[in-house]
Amino acid sequence: MSIIDRLVEHNVEYAKTYRGDYPLRPSKQVAVVACMDSRLDVFAMLGLGLGEAHIIRNAGGVITDDMIRSLTISQRMLGTREIVLLHHTNCGLNTFTEDEFDDLLLRETGARAHWKAESFRDVDQSVRESIRRITQSPFVPFTDNVRGFVVDVETGLLREVMRDDAEE
Amino acid sequence: MSIIDRLVEHNVEYAKTYRGDYPLRPSKQVAVVACMDSRLDVFAMLGLGLGEAHIIRNAGGVITDDMIRSLTISQRMLGTREIVLLHHTNCGLNTFTEDEFDDLLLRETGARAHWKAESFRDVDQSVRESIRRITQSPFVPFTDNVRGFVVDVETGLLREVMRDDAEE
Repeated sequence: MSIIDRLVEHNVEYAKTYRGDYPLRPSKQVAVVACMDSRLDVFAMLGLGLGEAHIIRNAGGVITDDMIRSLTISQRMLGTREIVLLHHTNCGLNTFTEDEFDDLLLRETGARAHWKAESFRDVDQSVRESIRRITQSPFVPFTDNVRGFVVDVETGLLREVMRDDAEE
Repeated sequence: MSIIDRLVEHNVEYAKTYRGDYPLRPSKQVAVVACMDSRLDVFAMLGLGLGEAHIIRNAGGVITDDMIRSLTISQRMLGTREIVLLHHTNCGLNTFTEDEFDDLLLRETGARAHWKAESFRDVDQSVRESIRRITQSPFVPFTDNVRGFVVDVETGLLREVMRDDAEE
């Protein structure tokens, strides 16, 4: 049995106790942006229940155009008002440079991507950069409550990264 | 106390029983792509544990350039080999058209986005379109095990969408 078949089999058990009466619009009016890392169970880590928050995740948890698209839809069409950013220690994006990634793709595929890998060296700086990308977007309307954190994957604890307003 | 403060407070409780010895590379070698919808608790729904799978989520769970970036990093740098796509019933992206979204942004911000909203009318068709975008990318190397599902948000159950190879 393949891994995906086993996930589907588990889902049948999950559905037996699933209560399906949650609304489309998140009740806590919050969107969580997080890295795709396998050690971040966002619902459990933040105590979120079903129907409460949008969860948006990519490699790094960095703010890209697609993140702006998702946050714009989250706020303008589905009523969220606050944003939590979760980056973390021991991140895969901290293990290579943009040049190394570009060279790898070119060597293995013969093609260059028109997007960047979004690798970074300093996770706090990466969180601040992502906050800036949100506050500077013309499309995300509610940016008073955008807060960024680094998750320590050894302890599971969040540490808030303070915005450096001098950089804005 | 703000909503975000309450999430951070819960995290302190969560960390008390957190075991922090998971590796960077997902042990099940699978990446799950899902919609940001608040009713999809991907870990619980698929029976995933910490350290097992990448979780990548955006508005709709549609394959955009940023999804290709994340999947490329997931497979080439962090060893995943299979992909599960999760779209769902009652999706917010099924409630407006691209033109309505473009008009809203232009009216409220005075600017046009250079990205599309990625709204859709038919969720099965959207899943197949996303599978095609993965298999046609030069950057995602492992595409033999890409499977797409629609989650019924009333029952919690997955329904697989079969690939229509005639369309490829």
